[in-house]
Amino acid sequence: MSLARIRIVLVEPQHPGNIGAVARAMKNMGLSSLVLVAPRAFPADEAIARAAGADDILACAQVVGSVAEAVAPCVQVLATSARLRKIPWPVADPEQAAHSLWAHAAAGQEVALLFGAERSGLANEDVDFAQGLVQIPVDPAFASLNLAAAVQVLCYEIRKQSLGPRPAVPDHEPAPQEELNGFLAHLEAVLIEIGFLNAAHPRKLMRRLVRLFRRATPDQNEIHILRGILTAVQTGRPPQNT
Amino acid sequence: MSLARIRIVLVEPQHPGNIGAVARAMKNMGLSSLVLVAPRAFPADEAIARAAGADDILACAQVVGSVAEAVAPCVQVLATSARLRKIPWPVADPEQAAHSLWAHAAAGQEVALLFGAERSGLANEDVDFAQGLVQIPVDPAFASLNLAAAVQVLCYEIRKQSLGPRPAVPDHEPAPQEELNGFLAHLEAVLIEIGFLNAAHPRKLMRRLVRLFRRATPDQNEIHILRGILTAVQTGRPPQNT
Repeated sequence: MSLARIRIVLVEPQHPGNIGAVARAMKNMGLSSLVLVAPRAFPADEAIARAAGADDILACAQVVGSVAEAVAPCVQVLATSARLRKIPWPVADPEQAAHSLWAHAAAGQEVALLFGAERSGLANEDVDFAQGLVQIPVDPAFASLNLAAAVQVLCYEIRKQSLGPRPAVPDHEPAPQEELNGFLAHLEAVLIEIGFLNAAHPRKLMRRLVRLFRRATPDQNEIHILRGILTAVQTGRPPQNT
Repeated sequence: MSLARIRIVLVEPQHPGNIGAVARAMKNMGLSSLVLVAPRAFPADEAIARAAGADDILACAQVVGSVAEAVAPCVQVLATSARLRKIPWPVADPEQAAHSLWAHAAAGQEVALLFGAERSGLANEDVDFAQGLVQIPVDPAFASLNLAAAVQVLCYEIRKQSLGPRPAVPDHEPAPQEELNGFLAHLEAVLIEIGFLNAAHPRKLMRRLVRLFRRATPDQNEIHILRGILTAVQTGRPPQNT
């Protein structure tokens, strides 16, 4: 499973609740490999509570003493960063980073994505282990992302890559034109019958209705309902009140 | 500011901490308009704590009693959903949804994105207010996203759109939801009058019609025409032939 080759590395996470929320975010997106570098408190009940069912990820999490150890087998390491660094690193956006990480993982290679501690982010010494930075396009006026939220955004982009080109989701199946046109002719006839359309000049108003119903792209079932309504108008009792 | 026209609507949120985390996620991505429908507990200290500095969003949040009220001025309403619905609605992925919401917002129109309660998600009655569904591509084996995480992903995609090339103006201007809903209520009343709908059980058929007309996104002129037809059915002569 290629997604398992993309490890999420949390460097010195301070709050066990965040570790749990990270596990949940990973599992939602199909990732499973979590590495903790010198966590302040782990294992912890609060982590399990916030994992909300992703405790298998916590149970399998590797705890290590250094970033070097965390990324040892990896061919690519990217570091998330909110700050601009004095030394200019190559900076990718989440989509570009996910594309690159996924390309390696799908080819059978191990890769890593580093996240810093909640308040301070990654130290320059940590970033030294990375080939490049990833920046989430936050509003500069309020740039401090929750740790799990940052992991969520990156894992979401990774999942999008893993699903490949966007599948065309046929939301519904529009009826063939002859059925739609049959309905429109029926509608016109009923509107003339009830005196809404002037039989001599039906065109302008009909054109607007035609445009509306073409835009709606009704399916066959909907056409049947609409024609049922028209028939009910034609054959129904006269209205009880006016 | 166009991002301010995209309102995040939380329907019956249960945990004030999540409301705070949602505010933080929104503010990170530059969004500011939060609407709460019948929150269980709000305002709340826990919300402020989890907002981590986004308390201005909480202070300005609108609290309303119904989804209808929450989306009244909006020309587009999309509903996030993890479940597949029995009646197939148009389903967008987050990128497609963000593209469409941003196009309207950038053109000066109000739009809304609905999120359901933590455990249960949106009820069908809530989804009835939407033109379509948005599904985040979660791992089906672990599909339950944290509420703030779901908001984070959608707001992130919206921000990406806002940073991208300005989209083309939508080709027509859909009517506000309150006008569309006024038409739908009128339609239901007429269908009961003419005996097409059973007044005791109007829901299933109405839901299909609601879906059809939301998909059509009628503009104000079209709503006037449609209501004119309904009035003609109510007041018109009985049909000459059957």
